Amino acid sequence: MSSDQRAVAERIGASFARQGLMATLGASLGAIAPGFVEIVLIPGPTVSQQHGFVHAGAVSAIADSAAGYAALSLMPPGRGVLTTEFKINLVAPATGERIVARGEVVKAGRTLTLAQAKVFAEAGGQEKLVALLTATLMAIEGREGVSD
Amino acid sequence: MSSDQRAVAERIGASFARQGLMATLGASLGAIAPGFVEIVLIPGPTVSQQHGFVHAGAVSAIADSAAGYAALSLMPPGRGVLTTEFKINLVAPATGERIVARGEVVKAGRTLTLAQAKVFAEAGGQEKLVALLTATLMAIEGREGVSD
Amino acid sequence: MSSDQRAVAERIGASFARQGLMATLGASLGAIAPGFVEIVLIPGPTVSQQHGFVHAGAVSAIADSAAGYAALSLMPPGRGVLTTEFKINLVAPATGERIVARGEVVKAGRTLTLAQAKVFAEAGGQEKLVALLTATLMAIEGREGVSD
Amino acid sequence: MSSDQRAVAERIGASFARQGLMATLGASLGAIAPGFVEIVLIPGPTVSQQHGFVHAGAVSAIADSAAGYAALSLMPPGRGVLTTEFKINLVAPATGERIVARGEVVKAGRTLTLAQAKVFAEAGGQEKLVALLTATLMAIEGREGVSD
Repeated sequence: MSSDQRAVAERIGASFARQGLMATLGASLGAIAPGFVEIVLIPGPTVSQQHGFVHAGAVSAIADSAAGYAALSLMPPGRGVLTTEFKINLVAPATGERIVARGEVVKAGRTLTLAQAKVFAEAGGQEKLVALLTATLMAIEGREGVSD
Repeated sequence: MSSDQRAVAERIGASFARQGLMATLGASLGAIAPGFVEIVLIPGPTVSQQHGFVHAGAVSAIADSAAGYAALSLMPPGRGVLTTEFKINLVAPATGERIVARGEVVKAGRTLTLAQAKVFAEAGGQEKLVALLTATLMAIEGREGVSD
Repeated sequence: MSSDQRAVAERIGASFARQGLMATLGASLGAIAPGFVEIVLIPGPTVSQQHGFVHAGAVSAIADSAAGYAALSLMPPGRGVLTTEFKINLVAPATGERIVARGEVVKAGRTLTLAQAKVFAEAGGQEKLVALLTATLMAIEGREGVSD
Repeated sequence: MSSDQRAVAERIGASFARQGLMATLGASLGAIAPGFVEIVLIPGPTVSQQHGFVHAGAVSAIADSAAGYAALSLMPPGRGVLTTEFKINLVAPATGERIVARGEVVKAGRTLTLAQAKVFAEAGGQEKLVALLTATLMAIEGREGVSD
């Protein structure tokens, strides 16, 4: 890992640690690379919907964060990122041992970045796609309280 | 409130109580009417993103549940509802004293229902739109573990 | 109609006339008001999909333009507007005598505006909702060739 | 090409020929493979928006058809497919010599199929991503007038 990549990983780690919701959900950061970020969630009653599957809101939360941090990983330091919209298709119940959201940048722009996250459920050593998210992230600069 | 409406409110209340994520987020049910359901969230560090606003994932979670229960409120007992997709536009930072998601049915269908949720931030006695969600809900019948 | 409103209607009319696609589809402008624009399409074989309904792409085209012009109607002259994303839910086959898209602004922002369009099919004097679109429009200023 | 693949290509070709809108736009079918369909559009004044770029509605039309036919290519004969929703992100102005939409299936289901289309602009021998669409397609069986 280059020192640049280490700096990106540290920056995302520090920002992730400030996302109170991620701690509340028990989510954790996985792999980080330029334009790519992974977030992991463990299914259980605290993140469930009424049938025992992981709630679409919890799936969305890790997918949105994974997409947002993938976008942030390509931005210069000091710039913050806000989600302006996302859409998620939930194609199978989110259940299993681990839920992994993999965010990646589709198109990085000066103001707007398009990112995507695929969410997989892992069970018995197998992965299954459970959701696909596309998100628009807006770069914010010089706005108090909004960086990284 | 008619006995029918009471039955709907009880059914949604019971289902909501099984959504572990709602308890984890500290969300609560508000007003319920046929085709309309309100969910309330109190901003704070446990549901925040990195700048201190309520995380888009938490906003989405209550908006998705409000839309889903609005759809469920028009379905015959025993039928369950799953979100197949939603899109959310986040138009202002979610911050204030209370975040309120108001879900309502746009078009109820046999298999698919389209519902919408507007999310408002309340502060100083004023409401401000912070997000707009549209969701497709699928009616599920006769699938083990999926009802209400 | 005030002179301001007349100016808005003229501006949108002139821009609409430059949208070659609208002429190709046979679409026409309907009512215009601040933050509100209507576009009308006549169903027929030239705008159909394979079952004879109006193609989702044609429904989207008039809904997107209606939403975009609703956004433009609230912007200062000389500023242009580009759609950055939209989502459309198609809730019933688009068929009948006339298809009417009604665009309105949900939240006007400095850079991004959220607009919505409802699309109705008219037949036998009755209207039926066939689609709901939400769109993000980006204001463009000082970019050659992009105004109105 | 196997006889199965030939049958799929013939089926999609016959359905495409019935999409009046595709002829109106001057769009044509490109490559076809199981779960994959390409549609091509030539930019010009008849499909433009007000700044001379290809209209988002025309981009959406070919992307939606490409996604829909990708879904249809995996379904048994006699089953029809309707788009229930799509979302499209427009990341760059659609302009150049050719616009190519490439649809592919993300997850095929019994009732609902999730498909995606990437739209590229070709100019001077280079391709550039201009849009990304995700669509939900619903399989329809035994409904008069709805097949293929």
